[in-house]
Amino acid sequence: MQFTSERRLDDGVFERHFTLGEIPGILWMPETASASAPVPLILLGHPTLGLGKMYPRLAARARHSAAEGFATATIELPGSGERPSWPALDQARADLRQAMRAGEPVTDEMVDALVLPLVDKAVPEWQAALDAFLSLPEIGGPVAYSGGVISIGIRLAVVEPRIVAAGLFAGSLVPRVMFEEARQVTIPLHVLLQWDDEGNDRQASLDLFDAFGSKEKTLNANMGGHTGVPQSAGDAAAAFFTRHLK
Amino acid sequence: MQFTSERRLDDGVFERHFTLGEIPGILWMPETASASAPVPLILLGHPTLGLGKMYPRLAARARHSAAEGFATATIELPGSGERPSWPALDQARADLRQAMRAGEPVTDEMVDALVLPLVDKAVPEWQAALDAFLSLPEIGGPVAYSGGVISIGIRLAVVEPRIVAAGLFAGSLVPRVMFEEARQVTIPLHVLLQWDDEGNDRQASLDLFDAFGSKEKTLNANMGGHTGVPQSAGDAAAAFFTRHLK
Repeated sequence: MQFTSERRLDDGVFERHFTLGEIPGILWMPETASASAPVPLILLGHPTLGLGKMYPRLAARARHSAAEGFATATIELPGSGERPSWPALDQARADLRQAMRAGEPVTDEMVDALVLPLVDKAVPEWQAALDAFLSLPEIGGPVAYSGGVISIGIRLAVVEPRIVAAGLFAGSLVPRVMFEEARQVTIPLHVLLQWDDEGNDRQASLDLFDAFGSKEKTLNANMGGHTGVPQSAGDAAAAFFTRHLK
Repeated sequence: MQFTSERRLDDGVFERHFTLGEIPGILWMPETASASAPVPLILLGHPTLGLGKMYPRLAARARHSAAEGFATATIELPGSGERPSWPALDQARADLRQAMRAGEPVTDEMVDALVLPLVDKAVPEWQAALDAFLSLPEIGGPVAYSGGVISIGIRLAVVEPRIVAAGLFAGSLVPRVMFEEARQVTIPLHVLLQWDDEGNDRQASLDLFDAFGSKEKTLNANMGGHTGVPQSAGDAAAAFFTRHLK
């Protein structure tokens, strides 16, 4: 992991940009963190819009978490942002959007073609990044995953034993095979659902919540569309992470 | 309202028992409350098990609310506890239980016969009690309703403008006509759902949540049966009341 820049934000949070091989990423550290007082870590998941576009929302979550005493970190997804384009993924996305626009059914094959290669490629990258984050003396663990591309969160929860809790955003298309993986998840979950999410099938989200194998899981559903998550839902998610990381 | 006893609990909460005509009730007041610093009020709803049986759970909620600076109050439901028995209601309950035990379908008529007379009788009693509570100089408002017999909470939310927010427990049979009333509810709602509630139809609870007319509504669903509500769900409900009463 090569740090490429560091700056101190107004509220005393250190923001460091880095590259991990070809993958750019950002790490936010509360000023209280040190080698003698290492802090827990939240991995900030996000959709495939690129870190540049997602930066304001990610930084807001990072500052909120830093105030709770948590480091946060994120990496660019394959095929997004500044990373080399991924023509097969772009094609799968274009096919799916065209079907939606034409009012045609979105088939399982279309969802699989878009999501499964992304999960297969992104999850090992997140795991390599986690190795790097945990090698820093200021980061001690435990580790949680928070955010979007719910299928990436599901796979990570299944394969990565260092992740002890996950806050997932039920806001994307989920391949059927991921429902089977969801049954293998056993860590505590906090699932956010926007009740009128225009890009989301509510019943599928409820079915997925039902499928998770975790004994401790909470569904927090609120009114409004995809980007209309109320402040209170953010506070509830923060309380979840505090419960499981402190 | 005639006070019949008063005692100070360990943590400085004043518990007063009272009667309002033939209706017994309990009022809990934080020691900070005074005529010059009146406090908000939460009405504590509960199922038809009688105040005696419900006392431990109600007192726990009352102490938690007092720590937040809220008064709480509850009254006995008609036909419950020490109040005169209500043969028609007892019969309706027996009919419904017998059908459940025999594995026969619970008809709309059975649910209506049990719940609608209770709502019709209990809601004006709650309103009369609210008049009495608000006449006390230590109670200033605003007022919220919290808890069970969700149909009573729905009706109160529709007819009682002094109630500004409600935390409802999706844990009972709901007559179809209450879905229509739910559409008329506009106050902020926090709905608690136990995902595997043995006495509850999950899909009906989700449909009811969908029906509420409120622009601000949150569904908080957790694993476990009717009495398995986790501490974190209590905390989330407390945060909801703090948001709307302070």
